[in-house]
Amino acid sequence: MRDLVYSVAASLDGYIAGPNGEFDWIVQDPTIDFGEVFRQFDTAVMGRVCFEEMLRLGRSPKDLGMKVFVASTTLDPAQHPDVTVVSADLAGTVSELKRTSGKAIWLFGGGITFRSLLDSGLVDRVEVSVIPILLGGGVPLVPPGRRSPLIFKDSRTFPSGIICLNYCVATQPQI
Amino acid sequence: MRDLVYSVAASLDGYIAGPNGEFDWIVQDPTIDFGEVFRQFDTAVMGRVCFEEMLRLGRSPKDLGMKVFVASTTLDPAQHPDVTVVSADLAGTVSELKRTSGKAIWLFGGGITFRSLLDSGLVDRVEVSVIPILLGGGVPLVPPGRRSPLIFKDSRTFPSGIICLNYCVATQPQI
Repeated sequence: MRDLVYSVAASLDGYIAGPNGEFDWIVQDPTIDFGEVFRQFDTAVMGRVCFEEMLRLGRSPKDLGMKVFVASTTLDPAQHPDVTVVSADLAGTVSELKRTSGKAIWLFGGGITFRSLLDSGLVDRVEVSVIPILLGGGVPLVPPGRRSPLIFKDSRTFPSGIICLNYCVATQPQI
Repeated sequence: MRDLVYSVAASLDGYIAGPNGEFDWIVQDPTIDFGEVFRQFDTAVMGRVCFEEMLRLGRSPKDLGMKVFVASTTLDPAQHPDVTVVSADLAGTVSELKRTSGKAIWLFGGGITFRSLLDSGLVDRVEVSVIPILLGGGVPLVPPGRRSPLIFKDSRTFPSGIICLNYCVATQPQI
């Protein structure tokens, strides 16, 4: 069974983007080996908003170097041949993906997709790179909903003051 | 000059209390030496809501073993002889307190008082004990407002999975 890992950068007050979707507050740290981060995964799952934000920033899903699944009921799959558009039953699709062999699966974002898969009991780990800033508003790490207890695994500090906190999700309610 | 330190427990998603003010999610950890925490301070500053919550829980400001200042325009000082009610110019009062000699000053809560003193450039350090839970809603660590960059100092992990993150406030705008 492959792990589904929500791995994101967040401010100390729990936002993954600014009020207007800004990412300029995310400190650049040359000591962070993104290759190492990427090599954990061979598949990424993301929501439509997150995907469109990636395109808006001039990035391609191909840059991730892995299979990309995008949850959306509105995207036209023919327009986005580089990704697999999941238009229905995201939980079922992810559940099936987890049963295939391979590396861990990156739950890339955003918060809505995370909430949906968390509530379905499909998220195994949460890795938050805490940026040293209070953002004072923005897109929450997780949209409103029920509590999810976590189990702390470890942390890693970088010279920029980013600290990466790793947790397992404590409960796995059945879908 | 004495440091003003916002020292609180928060969920990973940045809430200091649940949607109905709950604190039941704060993991008890017998290895945390609260005496050591308390001994850093000889003065506490808090907002009225936080103070009334303390009283509602059957606790007395005397339990803190330090001078307590409560920001409120409505509390009757005569009814609360154990504390100093600050009914106007909280920033001025705190600024003056910081210039007196003594230990660090604990900015006990809540978020509104923190936001007000942060915006006045009076908060020196932020210490967040991150509880291993996603709360999914509640009272935010800091109410909406402008960004405040922080400087990461250190962290300390406890057996319960609580990790205490210590920061200095990077900018000190003048009031």
